[in-house]
Amino acid sequence: MQDAAKVKKDDLAYNLHSWSAQGALNPLVVTKAEGIYFWDADGKKYFDMSSQLVNMNIGHGHKKVIQAIKDQADKMAFMGPAYAFEAKSEAARKIIEVAPDNMGKVFFTNAGAEANENAIKIARMFTGRHKIFSRYRSYHGATYGAANLTGEPRRFASEPGIAGFVKFFDPYVYRAPFPFKDDADATKYYIGQLREQILYEGPQHVAAIFLETVTGSNGIIIPPEGYLKGVRDLCDEFGIVMVCDEVMAGWGRTGEWFAVNHWDVKPDIITFAKGSTCGYLPLGGTIVSKEIAAYFDDNVMYCGLTYNGHPMGCATACATIDVYRDEKLIENSKNLGKVLGSLLEDLKAKHPCVGDVRYIGLFSAVELVKDKETKEPIVPYGKDPEKIMKKILGMLQNEGFATYSHENILIVAPPLCITEAELREALAILDRVLDSADNMI
Amino acid sequence: MQDAAKVKKDDLAYNLHSWSAQGALNPLVVTKAEGIYFWDADGKKYFDMSSQLVNMNIGHGHKKVIQAIKDQADKMAFMGPAYAFEAKSEAARKIIEVAPDNMGKVFFTNAGAEANENAIKIARMFTGRHKIFSRYRSYHGATYGAANLTGEPRRFASEPGIAGFVKFFDPYVYRAPFPFKDDADATKYYIGQLREQILYEGPQHVAAIFLETVTGSNGIIIPPEGYLKGVRDLCDEFGIVMVCDEVMAGWGRTGEWFAVNHWDVKPDIITFAKGSTCGYLPLGGTIVSKEIAAYFDDNVMYCGLTYNGHPMGCATACATIDVYRDEKLIENSKNLGKVLGSLLEDLKAKHPCVGDVRYIGLFSAVELVKDKETKEPIVPYGKDPEKIMKKILGMLQNEGFATYSHENILIVAPPLCITEAELREALAILDRVLDSADNMI
Ligand SMILES: Cc1ncc(COP(=O)(O)O)c(C=O)c1O
Ligand SMILES: Cc1ncc(COP(=O)(O)O)c(C=O)c1O
Repeated sequence: MQDAAKVKKDDLAYNLHSWSAQGALNPLVVTKAEGIYFWDADGKKYFDMSSQLVNMNIGHGHKKVIQAIKDQADKMAFMGPAYAFEAKSEAARKIIEVAPDNMGKVFFTNAGAEANENAIKIARMFTGRHKIFSRYRSYHGATYGAANLTGEPRRFASEPGIAGFVKFFDPYVYRAPFPFKDDADATKYYIGQLREQILYEGPQHVAAIFLETVTGSNGIIIPPEGYLKGVRDLCDEFGIVMVCDEVMAGWGRTGEWFAVNHWDVKPDIITFAKGSTCGYLPLGGTIVSKEIAAYFDDNVMYCGLTYNGHPMGCATACATIDVYRDEKLIENSKNLGKVLGSLLEDLKAKHPCVGDVRYIGLFSAVELVKDKETKEPIVPYGKDPEKIMKKILGMLQNEGFATYSHENILIVAPPLCITEAELREALAILDRVLDSADNMI
Repeated sequence: MQDAAKVKKDDLAYNLHSWSAQGALNPLVVTKAEGIYFWDADGKKYFDMSSQLVNMNIGHGHKKVIQAIKDQADKMAFMGPAYAFEAKSEAARKIIEVAPDNMGKVFFTNAGAEANENAIKIARMFTGRHKIFSRYRSYHGATYGAANLTGEPRRFASEPGIAGFVKFFDPYVYRAPFPFKDDADATKYYIGQLREQILYEGPQHVAAIFLETVTGSNGIIIPPEGYLKGVRDLCDEFGIVMVCDEVMAGWGRTGEWFAVNHWDVKPDIITFAKGSTCGYLPLGGTIVSKEIAAYFDDNVMYCGLTYNGHPMGCATACATIDVYRDEKLIENSKNLGKVLGSLLEDLKAKHPCVGDVRYIGLFSAVELVKDKETKEPIVPYGKDPEKIMKKILGMLQNEGFATYSHENILIVAPPLCITEAELREALAILDRVLDSADNMI
């Protein structure tokens, strides 16, 4: 039997929690999770409206994935990277089958940061160049390489940084420097800016451009029509490796296997993690094009880790991919994405505190402002002196709507197995809490 | 049913393998593993004499650990880092219980590289300094931060490196610049050199000194008596964080829970991975002293990852710790370590090609030379033009003795559950293969 008080006491006594001062923590003790819900030690039930860290796409406690884990544990829980075995061969094949058709091979890692770390190294080896472009409003992980890709403040703890990492601005149309006529106009501006920056950094030195296909943690920033194609063209023009980080946007989250499919763009490298196993077990990886894969036939690939191609993670990915397919979760994400979009537009129309809503599939954000006209954020950048976002998250949690925020932005990204009725029920909670938020501005 | 040919074909078609050119690969297809053995698809049985990558300490297929994995999968396979839950609280508590008594809290990661990444960040945050010392003959992982700690050539793919990473030489007494009278003499030299380098780098800028307590992959380099105490004293003198990387040396490998226990030295941070779960599932972590833990009560710790405190990894660690205890594996490592040592000394006495043997617990290396007197390595540094080491490893594998090598060094590190009879049987194979190696020099 679990003793919630002891669980919490030991947690605070012996664990260091992410991205926080430890003294102020008061973590919820969670005892159960199923489908789109989880429960705390008091039996209170929560809609998991962020799919934890936007990774629990198939929902909690899926019996088929659990069975696959048990079966692999019985068969062979671990074998080192030098060997071949069924789970690794099958997982790699299945992933290449659902990836864009120019993709060739997978290098498996434990999770997302390592997937990006290896993409950096592979791009540098493949091109013989050293500069790496990435964007400001981005999160790519917390290890030094991934953190130096990251543009937002979580990068600072990994600085002084790595030489040759260059940042550019993302196509954040809602807060653009001037209003755009349309997507084409926005794309022209952002791609033009990027091209000029590449020229001034020296294209012959640029190994890779990294981008989240759809920016996740930093506020679900969806590229305007033509933008990704524009980046692809620049990469082709200058021989630069295009890396799409689909750690969060991949695996059905946006209503496609990979978000790049929406714009029919083929990157040279895709990095993945989260949805590939939905967190049931750690797994991530770097998918490289056939062309890059062929390069490493004769050239040593200087990448490695103890748990490369871990049998348990690979078996979990195989089962998870089957679940996406058998239960049509990617279609559900696409279809319910339309419902979610229209509910969010209603919230925006109704609430003075909602400045913008952005959505694609079941991947969405609500951006809160003090004033719709001036677009002044509800909290200043990098601060929350009046604890406004904290209060809003607290009210949501009280009402059984669990999610997280970034700056002035709420993430709404439920498991892809949610039903329309459940989605409407959860969004009704959000609606009520936004009524209170309206009164805070 | 597994089809070995298809497993191998898909492996080569879709997987990128670590640290290799892919065209030349011919991986063994492994279908089964139990205790100290594994089997290939032809039914051939191998002694796992490196415990895979020196992580399979409790042996393959342990029923109790497998059961713990199944139970946790049923209970709750995943929950995000913000929450408290039983497996995470219990794993952290159990780890602190077996760690040196100055240790306070754990930050969980997926594996070893990330454990070191977070140790770098924590040391920099805690001290407000930026320089990081580490040693040449070392491997600390392959992500940018960990790879920049790493001294050996696997670092090069992560360069141009991170500013402020400084390398010093390890106490590799066998190939010391001049002969030492005794351990005290060696310690005096190495600590003196290190102190001078710290002074010239500016002690006020040095955040941390990283070292593998016993150097693993780079050849089981055991510190001379007094060396670790000497490093501890330098750290105390200059306010530097002492980080012991026990990813490989920890968890009974050397005959103690942690290798530092042999010398009764208390580092400020211990990083771990491998033996904590023996690879059944990925887990690693950064253990910090009570003093460092307290610093983060009021200061934000800028560390995080999606799978921080993963329920499945944590449950596996709990079960693995119980197995070490219940089956007295750490005692077995210590006791059989003596047998292993005397068998290795016999090999050294007998074989002209054996220049040095080094051992502590069940952690050992056989260093091969062309000439015992000159100590000329059997292969030149960084090369193997005549494929001598490859041939020796191939002969060992043919005879059912699986392990790996580093430069001119063979790693011998069987699972800690090996019996004396099995150890003698395996070492007899090594003896025979060394007969052939004698003829190669
Ligand atoms: C887009 C993106 N890339 C990379 C990462 C890092 O993944 P991990 O936390 O598994 O290392 C994340 C995590 O949130 C992410 O959202
Ligand atoms: C001493 C040491 N530190 C760190 C690592 C990296 O661990 P991982 O491969 O789990 O990232 C290793 C791996 O061999 C190691 O031996």
